[in-house]
Amino acid sequence: MPTTVEQWDYIELTLEGTQAGNPFTEVTLAAEFVSDAGEQVGASGFYDGDGIYRIRFMPTVPGVWRYRTRSSDSELDGIEGAFTCLPANGDNHGPVRVRHQYHFAYADGTPYRPIGTTCYAWTHQEEELQEATLATLQDGPFNKLRMCVFPKYYQYNTNEPSYHAFEGSMEDGWDYERFNPLFFRHLERRIADLRALGIEADLILFHPYDRWGYDKMSAETDDRYLRYITARLSAYRNVWWSLANEYDLMRAKTTDDWERFAEVVTSHDPYDHLISIHNCIPFYDYTRPWITHCSVQRVDAYRTAENTDQWRQQWRKPIVIDECAYEGNIDWGWGNITGEEMVRRFWEGAVRGGYVGHGETYLHPQDILWWSKGGQLHGSSPARIGFLRTILEEGPEHGLNPLPSDWDVPRAGIEGEYYLYYFGFNQPSYRHFKLDPGVRYQVDVIDTWGMTVRTLDQTFEGNFRIDLPGKQYMAVRLIRVR
Amino acid sequence: MPTTVEQWDYIELTLEGTQAGNPFTEVTLAAEFVSDAGEQVGASGFYDGDGIYRIRFMPTVPGVWRYRTRSSDSELDGIEGAFTCLPANGDNHGPVRVRHQYHFAYADGTPYRPIGTTCYAWTHQEEELQEATLATLQDGPFNKLRMCVFPKYYQYNTNEPSYHAFEGSMEDGWDYERFNPLFFRHLERRIADLRALGIEADLILFHPYDRWGYDKMSAETDDRYLRYITARLSAYRNVWWSLANEYDLMRAKTTDDWERFAEVVTSHDPYDHLISIHNCIPFYDYTRPWITHCSVQRVDAYRTAENTDQWRQQWRKPIVIDECAYEGNIDWGWGNITGEEMVRRFWEGAVRGGYVGHGETYLHPQDILWWSKGGQLHGSSPARIGFLRTILEEGPEHGLNPLPSDWDVPRAGIEGEYYLYYFGFNQPSYRHFKLDPGVRYQVDVIDTWGMTVRTLDQTFEGNFRIDLPGKQYMAVRLIRVR
Repeated sequence: MPTTVEQWDYIELTLEGTQAGNPFTEVTLAAEFVSDAGEQVGASGFYDGDGIYRIRFMPTVPGVWRYRTRSSDSELDGIEGAFTCLPANGDNHGPVRVRHQYHFAYADGTPYRPIGTTCYAWTHQEEELQEATLATLQDGPFNKLRMCVFPKYYQYNTNEPSYHAFEGSMEDGWDYERFNPLFFRHLERRIADLRALGIEADLILFHPYDRWGYDKMSAETDDRYLRYITARLSAYRNVWWSLANEYDLMRAKTTDDWERFAEVVTSHDPYDHLISIHNCIPFYDYTRPWITHCSVQRVDAYRTAENTDQWRQQWRKPIVIDECAYEGNIDWGWGNITGEEMVRRFWEGAVRGGYVGHGETYLHPQDILWWSKGGQLHGSSPARIGFLRTILEEGPEHGLNPLPSDWDVPRAGIEGEYYLYYFGFNQPSYRHFKLDPGVRYQVDVIDTWGMTVRTLDQTFEGNFRIDLPGKQYMAVRLIRVR
Repeated sequence: MPTTVEQWDYIELTLEGTQAGNPFTEVTLAAEFVSDAGEQVGASGFYDGDGIYRIRFMPTVPGVWRYRTRSSDSELDGIEGAFTCLPANGDNHGPVRVRHQYHFAYADGTPYRPIGTTCYAWTHQEEELQEATLATLQDGPFNKLRMCVFPKYYQYNTNEPSYHAFEGSMEDGWDYERFNPLFFRHLERRIADLRALGIEADLILFHPYDRWGYDKMSAETDDRYLRYITARLSAYRNVWWSLANEYDLMRAKTTDDWERFAEVVTSHDPYDHLISIHNCIPFYDYTRPWITHCSVQRVDAYRTAENTDQWRQQWRKPIVIDECAYEGNIDWGWGNITGEEMVRRFWEGAVRGGYVGHGETYLHPQDILWWSKGGQLHGSSPARIGFLRTILEEGPEHGLNPLPSDWDVPRAGIEGEYYLYYFGFNQPSYRHFKLDPGVRYQVDVIDTWGMTVRTLDQTFEGNFRIDLPGKQYMAVRLIRVR
């Protein structure tokens, strides 16, 4: 174990212990970590096979930390030590938290604006394809990735995963009391890869598209799995918990199950990672106190991101529309919108104070569709999503909040300081703006599809008219001139 | 007066009578028409100035008709005569009626599928422009025109009309007890022009965009105006009554007023022309028995035509979305959608069993915007709307009715006979169809924007897959092969 660690990275205590019996179920292990500033954190350990036990810990403040283990196995109990936590530097800003009610920031206060994409089963593909996915992510605009712990069985997804989460096999049955450490080590490696790229892993703990049985394990197995994965993964600062993709399609689970899962996860995650649950049709009750943000799926083939402001008012939490449909050309409406429509949905959500997510489902000769398997991106939206990301980063530090708007042009910003108007699929040749007199604004005419910002030579105040090019997907940004 | 007239054309009794006093208010005139088959119709007459009184009558069945006048003026009272009504021929199919609950047909049973457009104030423009409007209509796909009786004052509409409805002037005040026959003769001429083109005149009796006072006349004047215009115009078979455009913006009127107007119009129109009332924001109560069909304005910037099937269920009447927004490039969202979006809205409405209407608002150097003034069409939607019209005319005789559909692809038709699927803004590369086995279908892949129909060589039955070009605005039509 190293004697120094960077804040929000993790240190790992590696302990050797018994292999007798079933260490996964029979040995309890945890440690108490106490900083010289008085911070105190309890972290669970886990059995990693071959007599190796580990406790991972993500220090949240710099300073000297001391620890002492507790275990049902006397060999593992009462082990003490200390290490020094150094301040974070570089791109390490800590885990993401909710900030300013509807937005996010890293623990160090740096704004985080989710620009998510989706590769549900990317960690269950060939190694080479996983590397390609990482390379694509490295070059892309995304800073959050929705991904499943378990493999996926679905249209275009019929390949067998490399690893399974339990010992045993489909043929001979799974030993649900013995985890397969290889499965989890592999997952961890990929989460660390994402962390290195500055990408949050929005980790889906359960999902319904299954043929291996992960979707209908016993309550005891579910809970043990959740304790195990939180023990292994909570120390990764870039983890978000998504209890489920399309919880309502998991017929074997009840609301009581989801509430219990939430309790297991939140009580075993000492760092309070972001946590939500994603619907197919009915929303989960996002007012539940354990839910940090709403993880929304499209509610209508035509109108979803346009509901963002109303959902903010309803739930008083950040609105993340993780599935607004995917850019692509497959048969179903959830996977065949154009790049233009995808980008429009991102903007419609953004100017209403929310965050829309991306996915891509273009047919591929080897069925490598980004939305599930990763690989390459083929669509036209990611570049424009990157452009939006830049606009957001240039915007108010605390995020975009919707302002009272005309019925046909939503706008966001800060009254008297910053306005972002979005014209969507409309194609106006001009627009009148009515603002308070006495405040002058720089006017930027933004082509959200062409990815250009044209700053007008003149500044404006009060009531004024701005000429526009009479094409779709335009925005206007007003920034107060001081 | 001619001794023969074609069914659903009109004959006009021209009578000379008193000019003393105020014939508009002091002389009552009507006639009873009785056919040799026993049909009996009462028609009101009207004073047309210069001592001329007229009674117009549209015979609804062929045969010999006799009439006798009734008047408060003894000179005009008790005049008798007869004429022969010949069967309609050519393009004369009679007035349009509601048929099959949600659809329309002419009186002779010929299906009528409204393909409407909008030129609110076209009759109040220069003569030359009116002629240009008629020429455009003659070459276009439209068979219904929304138009106002009164002139319009609004953005892009600041010119003075040629005629006013009353004697007097803005400066000296209007004599609301004396109509200006020139105004009404001009309107009639234009309605006759439309009739000659096979275009229904969806005549808006009141509207709020006014600076002359037509929107805030007294109740007595309103009622007199309605009696006068129904006396003059009911005999035009192509007239529909629209009590108002945006009734809710006419602050001077109450629901009681609208109900009274409906009573005046329906009791003075002996032919039961179609009648409705158009909203800005809140719908009028379309369940009112006098309303023959719903005349809907867009309820949302994003989603309106997609509500058609739900509105059918709610109101059990034909759904005509007279204003879904206009193709154009003006500043406001109601007037700057693309041609593609306009055509999409037409199709979304059509496959849900309704009828969407057109309008166009491209900026023009002389402010000649089709939506109000007529003139030329500049947009890309009319040709595609014409293509849709052809598809509808080739479809079920009783109109398109929605069928239970997948969530992402609405479809209409007749189970086991005819299906029309519409893919809207999605861009599928293929689609699976699941139909009952044992029935074979011809499959037409329709590019609603490219205006092509590609009939596949093969026929299909049961469950089958159809390849599509992976672009937007496609439809698939299945027609049973016998």
